[in-house]
Amino acid sequence: MPGPSGSAGEFELIAAFTGLLPTSGEGVRLGPGDDAALLQPPRGETLVATVDAVVEGVHFDRRYTPGDIGWKALAVNLSDLAAMGARPLWALVALGVPRGAAAARLRGIARGLGACARLHGLAVVGGNVTRAAELSLTVTVLGAVARGRALRRDGARAGDLVLVSGTLGDAALGLAPDAAASLRRRQRRPTPRLALGLGLRRLATAAIDLSDGLAQDLGHLCGASGVGATLRAADLPRSAAARAACAGRADPWGPALSGGEDYELCVTVPPARVGAAMRAAERAGVSLTVIGEVTRGHGVRVLGPDGRTLPVGQGHDHLAPGRF
Amino acid sequence: MPGPSGSAGEFELIAAFTGLLPTSGEGVRLGPGDDAALLQPPRGETLVATVDAVVEGVHFDRRYTPGDIGWKALAVNLSDLAAMGARPLWALVALGVPRGAAAARLRGIARGLGACARLHGLAVVGGNVTRAAELSLTVTVLGAVARGRALRRDGARAGDLVLVSGTLGDAALGLAPDAAASLRRRQRRPTPRLALGLGLRRLATAAIDLSDGLAQDLGHLCGASGVGATLRAADLPRSAAARAACAGRADPWGPALSGGEDYELCVTVPPARVGAAMRAAERAGVSLTVIGEVTRGHGVRVLGPDGRTLPVGQGHDHLAPGRF
Repeated sequence: MPGPSGSAGEFELIAAFTGLLPTSGEGVRLGPGDDAALLQPPRGETLVATVDAVVEGVHFDRRYTPGDIGWKALAVNLSDLAAMGARPLWALVALGVPRGAAAARLRGIARGLGACARLHGLAVVGGNVTRAAELSLTVTVLGAVARGRALRRDGARAGDLVLVSGTLGDAALGLAPDAAASLRRRQRRPTPRLALGLGLRRLATAAIDLSDGLAQDLGHLCGASGVGATLRAADLPRSAAARAACAGRADPWGPALSGGEDYELCVTVPPARVGAAMRAAERAGVSLTVIGEVTRGHGVRVLGPDGRTLPVGQGHDHLAPGRF
Repeated sequence: MPGPSGSAGEFELIAAFTGLLPTSGEGVRLGPGDDAALLQPPRGETLVATVDAVVEGVHFDRRYTPGDIGWKALAVNLSDLAAMGARPLWALVALGVPRGAAAARLRGIARGLGACARLHGLAVVGGNVTRAAELSLTVTVLGAVARGRALRRDGARAGDLVLVSGTLGDAALGLAPDAAASLRRRQRRPTPRLALGLGLRRLATAAIDLSDGLAQDLGHLCGASGVGATLRAADLPRSAAARAACAGRADPWGPALSGGEDYELCVTVPPARVGAAMRAAERAGVSLTVIGEVTRGHGVRVLGPDGRTLPVGQGHDHLAPGRF
């Protein structure tokens, strides 16, 4: 049922989408096509549920390929599961489609979303397509974690060390028109740290994923735990490309501290367990770096190379989003 | 953090929302505020999951109060659970908010959504707020049903009777500028037939909720079951207000057949179980009317009062939505 001038009608949209997505998998008793999906939760585990939206002009723009959009819409949700130490099982996808959207663009989005879903063994079990003023994808992801084993934001204690995975600031720097290809990729195809989250379940006292920038997100973790934190700017892990992009800046660590969308994990670990956490990261194939300590009090303090407290930017604002 | 000219900032939006919603309930181990919710699924039951969006200018307009918008966004999802014979447990809500949206409007939406959630014993366990060009709510609802007891679209058999709950056409007629208050209310505050869905679990062979109009939705049920259906227009249940609004029309049954958004249930029941289904409906406090039979073949045929086949409209099109 194609609409005028190559635009896609309801049934074509839905067929284009579901045909390109993995729709069966663990526990899927009934996937897309009925009023709702039927899902058998794994026995003895706790469900983990989160929702996130990506909106054109807010979270992505015309520089993104359709595949990038689909990938990112799912990956940002999987990053939330990683921060809970959960494994992904199922997703539901609500698509807002402007009039005149090309079916090829929507197929590209489905391919990117499908690639990310297949890589992580996740089934898309339901969805919805609606006309809207701008293109958007709202993805709900469901996962599971052994009962009582989930990582949360509220378990950090004074004396724990603060660690962060991978490198920071790459995604924010990837927005620059002349950004290196590796930085652009970090912005458009974030890697959810699921294996690391699973590996840290009995080791970390608290965890959060970095969507709005380290300073802001660690601030949320500290607030939930009733503690403060002190970081050392010189210890923030930065990629060679990020270092090159920041050479000559007065605050070369600015993007690492306050740039958003890295989707790395920030965790707190008691000193005695840091060795085990490092080994877990090695098994997960990602670096893990000690960047500071949890303190009494509240707020995140960042020390510069000279030991003085640095001013910290307000963090990333994708035009004012937020999770609750 | 109010923005310029009374618009609402991120934290104000989130606080306004979560403060007005029920966020705890059965199985909720961790509600809003972390990277994801932690939920304990009921032992031995199957999860039921669905997502639906309502978008300004597509599913509602300025004649809706904010409370109507919040109510409807949740109710249309609960109607999907009703069609599966499931009871609701949890919801996740993604809100798209245009710049300059008044905080009072968002609080009104939260109140309407919260009222519908409380009425049905459902907890809102997570959400997301994003800037967007137009106001939208994308709601994911999770429920549960005893294993193997879910109603589906694909179980109808030739010889079953076709029944429908409540009255049809009211919601579509409620869009008219001079519509009676009772019809306007059916359009803006639909009633999900959850108790009826639960009561029909061992009685109906197939079920669907009526979002796009009887002819179209029963067509989906027939397609999934590999059968056809014959309906009698004179038997379609219509309210007194709907009859009055359609007096003088050449096709007084048009809105009942093809008007959308009634959110009644259409079910198929073997003749021997129709009495029990009627008693289940009585216990659920809603009428249930036999309107035709399931046949071999395919497609939905509608007989007029003179026994001739009527032409059937294309059904409701909220500007081309669809579930998959």
